Amino acid sequence: MRNLTEDKITEVVLQQIRTDNPRLRQVMTSLVRHLHNFVREVELTEEEWSYSIQFLTRVGHLCDQDRQEFILLSDTLGLSILVDAINHRKPAGATESTILGPFYRAGAPALELGATLAVKEEGEPVVVLGRVTDPDGKPISNALLDIWQASSEGLYDVQDPNRSEGDLRGKFLTNADGEYWFRTIKPSSYPIPHDGPVGDMLTALGRHPYRPAHIHFIISAEGYETIVTHIFVKGDPYLDSDAVFAVKDSLVADFVFNNSAEEAKKWGVRVPFYTVNFNFGLTPKFKPADG
Amino acid sequence: MRNLTEDKITEVVLQQIRTDNPRLRQVMTSLVRHLHNFVREVELTEEEWSYSIQFLTRVGHLCDQDRQEFILLSDTLGLSILVDAINHRKPAGATESTILGPFYRAGAPALELGATLAVKEEGEPVVVLGRVTDPDGKPISNALLDIWQASSEGLYDVQDPNRSEGDLRGKFLTNADGEYWFRTIKPSSYPIPHDGPVGDMLTALGRHPYRPAHIHFIISAEGYETIVTHIFVKGDPYLDSDAVFAVKDSLVADFVFNNSAEEAKKWGVRVPFYTVNFNFGLTPKFKPADG
Repeated sequence: MRNLTEDKITEVVLQQIRTDNPRLRQVMTSLVRHLHNFVREVELTEEEWSYSIQFLTRVGHLCDQDRQEFILLSDTLGLSILVDAINHRKPAGATESTILGPFYRAGAPALELGATLAVKEEGEPVVVLGRVTDPDGKPISNALLDIWQASSEGLYDVQDPNRSEGDLRGKFLTNADGEYWFRTIKPSSYPIPHDGPVGDMLTALGRHPYRPAHIHFIISAEGYETIVTHIFVKGDPYLDSDAVFAVKDSLVADFVFNNSAEEAKKWGVRVPFYTVNFNFGLTPKFKPADG
Repeated sequence: MRNLTEDKITEVVLQQIRTDNPRLRQVMTSLVRHLHNFVREVELTEEEWSYSIQFLTRVGHLCDQDRQEFILLSDTLGLSILVDAINHRKPAGATESTILGPFYRAGAPALELGATLAVKEEGEPVVVLGRVTDPDGKPISNALLDIWQASSEGLYDVQDPNRSEGDLRGKFLTNADGEYWFRTIKPSSYPIPHDGPVGDMLTALGRHPYRPAHIHFIISAEGYETIVTHIFVKGDPYLDSDAVFAVKDSLVADFVFNNSAEEAKKWGVRVPFYTVNFNFGLTPKFKPADG
């Protein structure tokens, strides 16, 4: 293991992978090969290597409880949506998944059906409602919807000094008929945090940092595969240039304008407001016995 | 740019590289292709993706003025020595280069020839001497040797609460005959910092974290290519299993045991001591006019 020349280095590094764990061996072998081939293919200079070390260090230093710059990096390089696509080759009838993003936080408040996500109700009122069903359309009761979104100013609670922790987040359980409904405010399209290294990268590549407006959902129910997904707002100007490549037509929902005082009263919102009807389909968990 | 399936994602991400900088386009295109192909090849799971995000975040959080965990990661994956090999395809007569490592610091004290690197002279005394020449053996005067090393306990100044900043570091200029000489203490083999994520990776892979004993040099002179290299201690048990793949036979030097009180007096060291004779060859800088 001396005198490693360009053509020998990769094989020697691979020989050092001595783990008995076959999956770790597989992942690390592929990772080392691809990283080495990248360096070889572009003949990475020492200045570029040094810049890369500094770039990654800046990414790491920006990560804290309110910001996850490595997820942003993965999202903007299309890695997150690729991992999502590979892990969710969905059968018909299941809702499509999309990326988690960096703003999910465990511990959103548990709310009653019909309650609002918005502690601070600045913005246009929205009522979201629908059902959670299995692929045959059978309602799933007690499905958990863990929901989070940005404000009408495009900020999540953790980014906004004017919002308290847990604002614009909530958890709901479907009723006996698999139904859910809740109130919120209309989310806005927004730039991902772009005052750090990921923003510098987007600028250097000639890319904008915007995401189309959306509401995040994680939907889980006993016996079913958990889904991580969004509902996007139909008509948003960034639906075709999402900075993190996450839009799917099946996830774009009509936010229907409603000026009826009577209906507003029924839902407990101001006029005008929007209604969104969106049904989620879950797939039963694969059981080895089924195979 | 919607409904990106596994087979379309990579091309769409590549289309978003809109920079006019051809080198940036080349590097990012290759990087995206290799990262995506890695994810595809191993079908990276969401748990593995999440672990990777956390791993990189831990690496970033450990980086500060005293520690550079991303350089350790690059070094232990063999990336640093590969970048070095690609960037220094040396002609005969030039000293081979090796990795920089994470412990270089600018601003080492400028010392007179014959001075010692060791503020705290605990350990076995060593006298290092030699010449810096061009490929024809012509001495290079005023060549700058920027030198750093670990102690006999295997710690650099920035790691050792018992050593002050700049201890075991020094800069020397060669004399009119291209000669240099300095005193120091014998370095020890040591584990790279392995109480962090890089150490966890080595453990998981069944690798040890040790490096054979060495002294670091950066040698520069006007009109010549700068060399980043080490002198390794002959006989070290880790020469054939360096955790960062950096050993080259041409850089292994005999630390010659010397028990002569007379010679010790001449060099200003205690008996017994070691002498190391090592000559460095620099290559003239490429000038476009030469081509």
